[in-house]
Amino acid sequence: MEVINSVHNNEVKHVVALHNKKERVISKEFIAEGIRACFTLLKSEIKLKKFYCTSTFYQQHYQELESFSVTLVSNAVMNKISTSHTPSGIVGIFDMPDNSLADWTTSGLVLAQISDPGNAGTLIRTAAALKIPTVVCIESVDLWSPKVVQSSAGTIGMVNIKQCSWQDLLTHIPSSSLYALTVTNGQDPYNTTLTNSYIVVGSEAHGIPEEWLSSCQHKITLPMPGNTESLNAAVAGSIALYLSFYKNSF
Amino acid sequence: MEVINSVHNNEVKHVVALHNKKERVISKEFIAEGIRACFTLLKSEIKLKKFYCTSTFYQQHYQELESFSVTLVSNAVMNKISTSHTPSGIVGIFDMPDNSLADWTTSGLVLAQISDPGNAGTLIRTAAALKIPTVVCIESVDLWSPKVVQSSAGTIGMVNIKQCSWQDLLTHIPSSSLYALTVTNGQDPYNTTLTNSYIVVGSEAHGIPEEWLSSCQHKITLPMPGNTESLNAAVAGSIALYLSFYKNSF
Repeated sequence: MEVINSVHNNEVKHVVALHNKKERVISKEFIAEGIRACFTLLKSEIKLKKFYCTSTFYQQHYQELESFSVTLVSNAVMNKISTSHTPSGIVGIFDMPDNSLADWTTSGLVLAQISDPGNAGTLIRTAAALKIPTVVCIESVDLWSPKVVQSSAGTIGMVNIKQCSWQDLLTHIPSSSLYALTVTNGQDPYNTTLTNSYIVVGSEAHGIPEEWLSSCQHKITLPMPGNTESLNAAVAGSIALYLSFYKNSF
Repeated sequence: MEVINSVHNNEVKHVVALHNKKERVISKEFIAEGIRACFTLLKSEIKLKKFYCTSTFYQQHYQELESFSVTLVSNAVMNKISTSHTPSGIVGIFDMPDNSLADWTTSGLVLAQISDPGNAGTLIRTAAALKIPTVVCIESVDLWSPKVVQSSAGTIGMVNIKQCSWQDLLTHIPSSSLYALTVTNGQDPYNTTLTNSYIVVGSEAHGIPEEWLSSCQHKITLPMPGNTESLNAAVAGSIALYLSFYKNSF
């Protein structure tokens, strides 16, 4: 079994470079951390390149890991390749899937200028739980960043990810299928038919850009009797997705 | 206007100490950061002690701030008293409300061993948006910690917070009102009557302790056709709260 103890090793440098989008785009690889996220990724069609583990972690999990390509690393190397303050002891390198040729399904989720990786990953996790086939990412955080993969709990491999522009979206999805989730002035999704719907979720701070909003035929708004300003974006989007699920549109 | 430039000032030391539960319990005070969370707190019955602002921040917001007690601080002091990597420029000290004498309402939310401050705060935010009157916190993260207050977007003042034991809860709320949210084997809340309900949400990693679960008369489970392991705890709890809202129980 290969062992790396030096933080100056070239492989280590490559894994560290994958913390940034630039290297991910060039190498078409991304990283995931933690046994749960890594093994959830393996349940999808995402391909593993290799695992890096500390020896302590490997000893605890060798039965699960023995059929995979594993490189043992020192604690110093793990601290370097992990993006976490308290590394779990395992980092996996995976091939980024190419979803560009995947069909545009009739239903999906659109992340519109969502910059928070936690919100983006959590929304992907809800979409995966509901078997929503397509997640479209427009001017949002890079969905292959370690924090998004982490917040998705590794479910990002279960949906088709499309990173494109709003104009691209409009060439594939009719305006009548676009349901913008807004803080005010929309219909309550509980009382709305949501068939063949793409639910568009914007950022908490700025919402959905006005121009994009005007090309969505429908607006939906969750009731907030407590008169608070808004809900967490991931929560609001997830509730809207669930309500549309109960309406049997997916 | 008072000005503090030294990080060794006693007031600065007190604010820093409020980052920890021990000092919050002694002084019955807590801190909030960011103009949005602070002003949302002021919409509730929570009382402000004072604001600490950088002069840059004060100049940008003096119209909103001029009627409040404000102490100007240097950037070094702000970096010290803020819990954020990128301080917004305002920290508020507030009196912790005493909800121990508040009535036990017929409906509410129970946080059962929720250790993640982001999940706890997000659930409080959903409860506030839905006008759910009571949030019970059992063996969970301290709800007055800066991260919980932040994730609640300042809405924590809009609900009655009760921090107690499971046994205490059972002396006030009948088992027939307790709806445990579980990953499997519960009824779909969409098809369940949820009247006078306390929805019990456990941690993602460990769920609700078996003994506690056995004293809940009802179990509810959200459908997950995508065969993922679970949803984010804040998302699952929020969806359950919303579905119970639509059932008109709150």
